Amino acid sequence: MITSIQNKFVKEWKKLHKKKYRQESGTFLIEGEHMIEEAYETDQLITTLIVQEGKEVPAWMDEEYVYIVTENVFKEISQTEAPQGIAAIVNMGSMKQEHNNYVLLIDAVQDPGNLGTIIRTADAAGFSKVVLGEGTVDLYNDKVVRATQGSIFHLAIEQRDLNEAITNLQTDGFSVWATTLRRAKNYAEIEPTNKTAIILGNEGRGVQQKWLDMADELVKIPMYGKAESLNVGIAAGILMYHIRK
Amino acid sequence: MITSIQNKFVKEWKKLHKKKYRQESGTFLIEGEHMIEEAYETDQLITTLIVQEGKEVPAWMDEEYVYIVTENVFKEISQTEAPQGIAAIVNMGSMKQEHNNYVLLIDAVQDPGNLGTIIRTADAAGFSKVVLGEGTVDLYNDKVVRATQGSIFHLAIEQRDLNEAITNLQTDGFSVWATTLRRAKNYAEIEPTNKTAIILGNEGRGVQQKWLDMADELVKIPMYGKAESLNVGIAAGILMYHIRK
Repeated sequence: MITSIQNKFVKEWKKLHKKKYRQESGTFLIEGEHMIEEAYETDQLITTLIVQEGKEVPAWMDEEYVYIVTENVFKEISQTEAPQGIAAIVNMGSMKQEHNNYVLLIDAVQDPGNLGTIIRTADAAGFSKVVLGEGTVDLYNDKVVRATQGSIFHLAIEQRDLNEAITNLQTDGFSVWATTLRRAKNYAEIEPTNKTAIILGNEGRGVQQKWLDMADELVKIPMYGKAESLNVGIAAGILMYHIRK
Repeated sequence: MITSIQNKFVKEWKKLHKKKYRQESGTFLIEGEHMIEEAYETDQLITTLIVQEGKEVPAWMDEEYVYIVTENVFKEISQTEAPQGIAAIVNMGSMKQEHNNYVLLIDAVQDPGNLGTIIRTADAAGFSKVVLGEGTVDLYNDKVVRATQGSIFHLAIEQRDLNEAITNLQTDGFSVWATTLRRAKNYAEIEPTNKTAIILGNEGRGVQQKWLDMADELVKIPMYGKAESLNVGIAAGILMYHIRK
């Protein structure tokens, strides 16, 4: 059992709170029973399981990879306000790759909760791929991971240049929609084709002009009341379910 | 200028961080230029304006109601991480009352961010009334108010028994939809009538059985992928825009 926060493993694990070390190691931290079950059930490579003393170790986990730690040590590793006493280190490399006819492109969404919720909603709507363009919050940020509620393991998610992604999708027969308020059609008046991708923009400035210029359709969600805009996650949900309906 | 956090006004204003004192005084705190403009533009009664020294006082505000405070005092009053240096005390009593044919009923949504976003989305979708049933987070909680982005001033919002609200709406010719996963129809297959109300449930347990029993339609949003559920705000957005389309 690890009892000291000075332990070398504890120090290594804590490094994963930072993007730089996640990228260097190709691993990230997840917390809580639900997330760990999701990782296991989707054949995600769990390299280390960290369990607080007194908490149950899942039966399927090879003992070799399990570390038991004190409550104090667990708190040091945890990034949640109410730690559940179980965390895991997961390999990024084993994420899903294949995709279907519904793709989401993210242009610099910066709030971790928004990105996580968008990924969860994309999963619910049967989208199978999400491309994270430059300036988007790190996918492996603990708040993003938590807000996906496990959907991070269900989809193919790439960090990639949007120029290339849009071009490839169009070559592949996709109609690419971009959300914007100016010169855009009401989304409800556009009949989705059977291969559709949606570009969602940053919370403040929306989708950049260069991606609007490349899009096949400019779409907007009408404001019927006095609100000036929708939250980007809500907009994503409305558009994705319109396309799948 | 108020320079001390021990000042009696500062102590009074800080009390509004607590629900009990908001209810007793019938007032609540708002922060930031955008929120204050929204309150002003919608004829909301602003009883006090609190401005940090060096920040601009809006030209429309009667000087009699303006208090200038030091940065230190403003931080004491503020509930945001990055205070904008302007706050106001607003009268609850002057909220909008009239409503149209689209009503949202909330059964114990507990996350302030969710409730605020739902109110903002209801405004965008042209819903004009939101009824907050028992167990719902306090409307005047600072995080709720902030997440509405001003829509708190655009809608009629009541804290009220849902039994009475549902009965009155049905008497008034409304079709009342309740969201649930069991024995429910796909929302997309139901043609909305011209007077529709939607009941949204608590994040964990959903809509209570007693309200499901009263509803005219049980509706669900299908899960096309592997996600187990949608965030309640996202579900609200999809359903309200379906009804308005």
